[in-house]
Amino acid sequence: MAIKIDLRSDTVTKPTAGMLAAMMAAKVGDDVFGEDETVHELETKLAGIFHMEAGLFCPSGTMTNQIAIKCFTQPMDEVICDQTAHVYRYEGGGIAYHSMASVRLLNGPRGIISPELIEPEINEDNIHYPNSSLVVLENTVNKGGGACYQLSQIEPIHTLCNIKGLKLHLDGARIFNALVATGDSAKHYGQYFDGISVCLSKGLGAPVGSVLLGSKETIKKAVKIRKAFGGGMRQSGFLAAAGIYALDHHVQRMSVDHDHAKALAAALNQVTYVASVMPVETNIVIFEVATGFNTENIIHLLAEKGIVCSTMGLKKIRFVTHLDVSPEMIDYTIEQILHLHPSLHK
Amino acid sequence: MAIKIDLRSDTVTKPTAGMLAAMMAAKVGDDVFGEDETVHELETKLAGIFHMEAGLFCPSGTMTNQIAIKCFTQPMDEVICDQTAHVYRYEGGGIAYHSMASVRLLNGPRGIISPELIEPEINEDNIHYPNSSLVVLENTVNKGGGACYQLSQIEPIHTLCNIKGLKLHLDGARIFNALVATGDSAKHYGQYFDGISVCLSKGLGAPVGSVLLGSKETIKKAVKIRKAFGGGMRQSGFLAAAGIYALDHHVQRMSVDHDHAKALAAALNQVTYVASVMPVETNIVIFEVATGFNTENIIHLLAEKGIVCSTMGLKKIRFVTHLDVSPEMIDYTIEQILHLHPSLHK
Amino acid sequence: MAIKIDLRSDTVTKPTAGMLAAMMAAKVGDDVFGEDETVHELETKLAGIFHMEAGLFCPSGTMTNQIAIKCFTQPMDEVICDQTAHVYRYEGGGIAYHSMASVRLLNGPRGIISPELIEPEINEDNIHYPNSSLVVLENTVNKGGGACYQLSQIEPIHTLCNIKGLKLHLDGARIFNALVATGDSAKHYGQYFDGISVCLSKGLGAPVGSVLLGSKETIKKAVKIRKAFGGGMRQSGFLAAAGIYALDHHVQRMSVDHDHAKALAAALNQVTYVASVMPVETNIVIFEVATGFNTENIIHLLAEKGIVCSTMGLKKIRFVTHLDVSPEMIDYTIEQILHLHPSLHK
Amino acid sequence: MAIKIDLRSDTVTKPTAGMLAAMMAAKVGDDVFGEDETVHELETKLAGIFHMEAGLFCPSGTMTNQIAIKCFTQPMDEVICDQTAHVYRYEGGGIAYHSMASVRLLNGPRGIISPELIEPEINEDNIHYPNSSLVVLENTVNKGGGACYQLSQIEPIHTLCNIKGLKLHLDGARIFNALVATGDSAKHYGQYFDGISVCLSKGLGAPVGSVLLGSKETIKKAVKIRKAFGGGMRQSGFLAAAGIYALDHHVQRMSVDHDHAKALAAALNQVTYVASVMPVETNIVIFEVATGFNTENIIHLLAEKGIVCSTMGLKKIRFVTHLDVSPEMIDYTIEQILHLHPSLHK
Repeated sequence: MAIKIDLRSDTVTKPTAGMLAAMMAAKVGDDVFGEDETVHELETKLAGIFHMEAGLFCPSGTMTNQIAIKCFTQPMDEVICDQTAHVYRYEGGGIAYHSMASVRLLNGPRGIISPELIEPEINEDNIHYPNSSLVVLENTVNKGGGACYQLSQIEPIHTLCNIKGLKLHLDGARIFNALVATGDSAKHYGQYFDGISVCLSKGLGAPVGSVLLGSKETIKKAVKIRKAFGGGMRQSGFLAAAGIYALDHHVQRMSVDHDHAKALAAALNQVTYVASVMPVETNIVIFEVATGFNTENIIHLLAEKGIVCSTMGLKKIRFVTHLDVSPEMIDYTIEQILHLHPSLHK
Repeated sequence: MAIKIDLRSDTVTKPTAGMLAAMMAAKVGDDVFGEDETVHELETKLAGIFHMEAGLFCPSGTMTNQIAIKCFTQPMDEVICDQTAHVYRYEGGGIAYHSMASVRLLNGPRGIISPELIEPEINEDNIHYPNSSLVVLENTVNKGGGACYQLSQIEPIHTLCNIKGLKLHLDGARIFNALVATGDSAKHYGQYFDGISVCLSKGLGAPVGSVLLGSKETIKKAVKIRKAFGGGMRQSGFLAAAGIYALDHHVQRMSVDHDHAKALAAALNQVTYVASVMPVETNIVIFEVATGFNTENIIHLLAEKGIVCSTMGLKKIRFVTHLDVSPEMIDYTIEQILHLHPSLHK
Repeated sequence: MAIKIDLRSDTVTKPTAGMLAAMMAAKVGDDVFGEDETVHELETKLAGIFHMEAGLFCPSGTMTNQIAIKCFTQPMDEVICDQTAHVYRYEGGGIAYHSMASVRLLNGPRGIISPELIEPEINEDNIHYPNSSLVVLENTVNKGGGACYQLSQIEPIHTLCNIKGLKLHLDGARIFNALVATGDSAKHYGQYFDGISVCLSKGLGAPVGSVLLGSKETIKKAVKIRKAFGGGMRQSGFLAAAGIYALDHHVQRMSVDHDHAKALAAALNQVTYVASVMPVETNIVIFEVATGFNTENIIHLLAEKGIVCSTMGLKKIRFVTHLDVSPEMIDYTIEQILHLHPSLHK
Repeated sequence: MAIKIDLRSDTVTKPTAGMLAAMMAAKVGDDVFGEDETVHELETKLAGIFHMEAGLFCPSGTMTNQIAIKCFTQPMDEVICDQTAHVYRYEGGGIAYHSMASVRLLNGPRGIISPELIEPEINEDNIHYPNSSLVVLENTVNKGGGACYQLSQIEPIHTLCNIKGLKLHLDGARIFNALVATGDSAKHYGQYFDGISVCLSKGLGAPVGSVLLGSKETIKKAVKIRKAFGGGMRQSGFLAAAGIYALDHHVQRMSVDHDHAKALAAALNQVTYVASVMPVETNIVIFEVATGFNTENIIHLLAEKGIVCSTMGLKKIRFVTHLDVSPEMIDYTIEQILHLHPSLHK
């Protein structure tokens, strides 16, 4: 099969020629000694975009999230988040492991939570209960099919956290997809969150890394935690250079990915083997397989056509569009979707 | 107020004269050196009742539960239990703190879970997911209003755990209430569970303590963990003697507590300020306050009559019957329930 | 063998008739609800003796120590103590397990440490190093053969900790032995330490328990940690009553235990199978077995005479005197020591 | 100052032109999905060199060490290592934080430990003691001035661990320096160790990364732990390519660094402001400043000449030679050492 269209995740992108050239030309130093100027430039640039005081480059979004949770909690505290949250579901049990913190899980529509859901779950001061100390939002929501928070939904959550003395962290693995889709300004985010994780290796298309944003005090703590996690890298400017390039060249183009995702959803809505498609807001399409059809069979048939994708639970399939998926690939994929003939269960 | 009827919890009982005499006559030794014969007798007696190999006396049910969870998990594992479970809700965030284990929370009717609820939540082997290694049941379910598992409901859970390689622990804080209510035999429990916590200071009426039951190998691990927890006590035979006395004298009489609880529920079902009462199975009565009435107000009015109870969430009130609540006290309480006039919100 | 003289530890004592009567007369309540007046009396009494704000009764000295260390550290902090310290050696690895804190180990003479030893081991602020946050002293030093700190040795350690921003905790498992031996006043201790563990079940002769002393704020944190540890007990006033009785009746008499220990040491200094005896300051005698003699053999021969003791490392034997060791038993033991004929290695 | 000779650490090297070309030509994929062929090639290549079954690329040596320690211990276990060990001293308290394991610290000559030192520190099975489960060696020993183990010193440690049931891990941050210096073969290492960390970003001169070697089973566990640590990177083949290049081109040349270090030591041995120089075995020179001279003053004077170095404790200075230090730089540095005139204290 010559054709290979990888819709499993936006993490699979490979650097463009321009990005590779930027990497190659990077000025590097020993970042554990704080001497890599390219890393420093990336951290400063992203902090500026979100109006935060400081940034910290880490090897992954899991690390920036888990460091943030460690910064904002103590053992025996409790983290409030949606039950679909990446920090809870897909980070290896890290909240309990790294932070010895309990979780209180909400059930927001498509993973979007609100003050109404959060407030009743904040524990009162009682020796039997963990101390509620942190709320984590995810924007866009991966398991929610790329659903976005509007800034206007975040503001009252910030207010509640402020009143109740809780910290607020954003898992912004796909925050630029949200910003592009909503038109909200990154500059306003800094005032609402105590910590923001921004991933460079998803829609932005950099090969490796994520940046944690926060106050100077938070980032000072975070540097120390990163060291203990083994996330301190030496001449990591090569990776940071790719991030800088991505911020300069790959943000606005995300609207193309979003259009692609909508086009795929439109096709999926026309075929009998699909029960329903989550409304597409960004670059993720999650659809439910119709009764009588088999998820594995559909995935297998698509793979035979060179299209690879992933499951999200038993009856759900996920497509993710990204930088390495061209309009031609989308057209081809739509063609295949419309003409696929998965077998019905007898 | 001369009268004081304490329906807050069955933990408030004080030793009877007989129990006190048994305590006073206890032969004691240094149990950290394994030399307290009364402690040993209690551990052996309870292990025998449940057909388990060995037992370990600890200062509380929280400790026996948390030690069991530590025995049966590793950091980065996941514990499956109902979202109401005492081990998750009321033990200070201990699962995350002591065991660095994540939780997967089910939503069973009145906290009673089943293989159908458990199986889809067992994680497949994937680096993103915690390793599902333990299921915890609670019998009776405190937050479920004293609901009981039948042995026939436990057996298929045991089978599922066996097939999937998970351990099964019972938080038996009120296991004797369940046994008395269902008529099930304790002897059958030993074959289904890897660990059982039996609390002595609730319905059994002993002042302090809980016993963890398990295999010899589990209890060997548990002794070491108890030492690190600071749960190793010296001449603790005084407390163990109360437990032995309770097992000999306070088990069958629990049916009286259950009758008392049913009588209270019947009264509550007759008054307008109660929206609903959870069906009573054992010694716990949880009722929901009707719209327009105020929970705190009702509790306050009862307290003025000498009856103290506790809340279980915003609109719920809990009564617990026990050894120190006499038939006369129940009659008096019913009288007060029927004639209480809580104020309606304007 | 009719005679049984237990010199293994001062933890083996059994309540006297007076203590037992006090226990059985105790007024109790549910201490998890803060309603056990005897527990409250004990906590208040001990806090008063040491001029501390508040106290917390726990099942063991290991628990009071480990709770204090948790109160005074965060994960990735470092605790400074002597390499012989009970908190490091004999508490099941609790510093790392409960507090996720590292240790910096000093080598004080007989376990007695000083500002000169401590200061160079306080880490500077550097991402590679744990944060030095706590110093722990032990008084008397168990592995140091019952060696005591003078108050005048503690004061400069307190000053150093104050300047450097470290907390100072006292493992006072045998603090009353130290007070009796030095003539120092307990009242002065409160101003030097952030936390003090006082054990009731060693020289004081109570069956179970230890009290953590500290500021109101520390004890508020400690109550919550105790709950998570499973150290919250219900009607624990029975045990607390023994502690109150011990404080009233068993403090001054410790000088008898000290005289007994000195008498044993004098005898040991006369026999060929003993290489050296640590100078006796309190109720512990540690001696080194002479070259050519076998530790196990000596212990075995003493056991045949009804005298049991314990080893402290390969060539060391420990005797501990206490409430249940009478002058007659000491005379008998001396007689046996002087006439023992351990076999020489060929 | 035009000249800049960086002797602070061998971590400061920047990629050569050849290495950079190799990086940019690397074929990459998503390594979290196991699809980066360059990463796979590096892991396989290093595993082959050390005759281990499998390898795992991580962002740093701290991460490979800490993952290994987590693989080989459980909470409440104890790790035996020298008191100078990097894993204990310079990894942010990671042993306690990540593994909840205690440490037993030895005092080997220049950090080199032996079965005679290890064996008495293995705890017997006793509830008071942590379970001794792992020995960690460091080769070369950083704080020991680059001292090396001979393979013949490692073999009996392996034998002891085997008999006692302990695992054996090698912190091989500078293992290739040791191999070049001793002439020992890497192939023999695989049979002695359960885990080996090999750092790519020290003497080997790669910008980022370290590889953990072990059995397939160990590496399977390690992949999961790496995910939770946030060490899973996406297109990390760019970094791995540098590692492959370094293994092909930068191993044998380390003897040049060793000669340079010896030349520096010879110069230091001639000047009055140096009390002593640790015998040089590899690329590290640690010397003690003579009484009357000030460490900071010497460092400052060297810095004025363009030579930067670091302290190792109050009176010690460390030079590290590496790929970016040329023979000319060494000649210049020797010249400066010989003519430096640090001021004497009054």
